[in-house]
Amino acid sequence: MSLRFYYDLMSQPSRALYIIFKISNVQYQDCPVALRKGEHLTEEFKENINRFQRVPCIIDDGYKLAESIAILRYLSAKGKIPEHLYPKYFVEQARVDEFLEWHHITLRVTCSLFFRTIWMDPLLTGVRPSNEKIQHLTQHMEANLDIVENVWLQKTDFLTGQRLTAADIFAACEIEQIRLADYDVRIKYPKIKAWLKRVRAGCNPHYDNAHQYVYKISGTAPHAKL
Amino acid sequence: MSLRFYYDLMSQPSRALYIIFKISNVQYQDCPVALRKGEHLTEEFKENINRFQRVPCIIDDGYKLAESIAILRYLSAKGKIPEHLYPKYFVEQARVDEFLEWHHITLRVTCSLFFRTIWMDPLLTGVRPSNEKIQHLTQHMEANLDIVENVWLQKTDFLTGQRLTAADIFAACEIEQIRLADYDVRIKYPKIKAWLKRVRAGCNPHYDNAHQYVYKISGTAPHAKL
Repeated sequence: MSLRFYYDLMSQPSRALYIIFKISNVQYQDCPVALRKGEHLTEEFKENINRFQRVPCIIDDGYKLAESIAILRYLSAKGKIPEHLYPKYFVEQARVDEFLEWHHITLRVTCSLFFRTIWMDPLLTGVRPSNEKIQHLTQHMEANLDIVENVWLQKTDFLTGQRLTAADIFAACEIEQIRLADYDVRIKYPKIKAWLKRVRAGCNPHYDNAHQYVYKISGTAPHAKL
Repeated sequence: MSLRFYYDLMSQPSRALYIIFKISNVQYQDCPVALRKGEHLTEEFKENINRFQRVPCIIDDGYKLAESIAILRYLSAKGKIPEHLYPKYFVEQARVDEFLEWHHITLRVTCSLFFRTIWMDPLLTGVRPSNEKIQHLTQHMEANLDIVENVWLQKTDFLTGQRLTAADIFAACEIEQIRLADYDVRIKYPKIKAWLKRVRAGCNPHYDNAHQYVYKISGTAPHAKL
C-alpha cells in the first residue's frame, strides 16, 4: 500500500480527512502521530515526513504533501474521493472551495484560539485565562458562528447546498473541538445544532470514531441523530 | 463583458487577483470598492454582490463567488489562467495548493494582524498599541517569515519551485502590506528580499500598479529589480 496517512484525532483537520477517507474507502497505511508526546517535533519527522512538523499529512508513493485541503484536492484529482463529497464540476467545486477558503481565518482561527486558550494552555501552564480574555475570544468566535448560522445555513440543509460535502465535514470538526472548552454550540445556534446532527448522521460510524477522544475528554455526548 | 471584478488595492488578496488577472489578460468589468468609505458594508452590497461583505469577489455572468483562491481555481478551470501561474497537472497543482492552504492561518493572519494593529487601528482610534503588544505581534509574524525564508525558499527561487506561480503573488502581496506598519522585511530576511525582487520583476508593470497606494502611503520605494 503506497499511501501513508499521518494524523492525530485530537487535530480538527486530521479528523476531517480521517472521516473523508473512511467514507471514500481510501486505502491507506495508518500512521497515527501523538501530538501530545511531541512526535511531530523530532528532526526525523521534519526530515522524512513533513517539513512543517504538523498533521495531517500524507506520503503517496514518495510524494510528501501537507495541508488537509491540498490533500483532499490531490486525492480527488486521483479519483479517490467521490464526487458527492468534493464535486468535479468546477461550478459546484467552487462553492465547496469558497467555504473551505473562507473558513481558515474565520471559523478555524477563532474556534482554535478559543479551544487552545481555554482548554490547552491551562493544561500546559496551569494558568487560566482572565474572564476578559475569555469574553474577547467568545465574541470573535461567535461572530463567525453567527455567519455559519445566518449566512451559510440560511437557506440550505448543508453549508454549500442540500447535500453533505467535504465543507461540512471540515466545519463540523472545527466546531466539535470547542466542546473541549465547555462551549455548547447548541444553546445559541439552532441551525448549527440541527446541521451538526445531519453531518454526524451522514458520516457515521466514522464521525463518532473520529470524535471518540473529543467525546471522552469533554465528557459530553454526541449530538443525537435526527 | 460578463465578468465583474470587485476589489480594493488596499486589500492584499485583491491585489494578488488583480496582478494575476492582468498577467493572464483576463477581461473583466472594473468594479473598485473603497473599503475606507465602507462601500462593502451597505445592504445593497450584501444583497447583490457579496453576502460576506468583503473583497475581492466576482460575479461571472450572474454567478457570485467570493474568496480569492476559490476565484483563482474557478477561473483556472474555465481556462482563463495560464498553466504557469496555476498548474493544471494535479501533482504540480498540489504544490501550489499546499502553499495557498498553508498561508492563511500562518503568514496571512500574522502579517494582517501586525498591519492592522500597528497601522490601521491607531488611524481609526488614535490609540497606539503598547510596546509589549508590538513585540508579541512581531514574534508571531517573524515565526512565519522564518518558515518562508528557511523552508519554502530553502532550495528554490520561488515558493513552490523554480518558476513564479500564483502562490508567490499571494505571498508577496501579504508581505508588502507590512511596509505600511514600517516593517522592512529585507533587513532580517535575505532570501525573502531576493525573492520579492524576482516576483516584482516577473509581474511588472502590474505589481507596481497594484502596489501604488502601498508605496505611496508607506513612503517607501519598490524593491529594486535584480
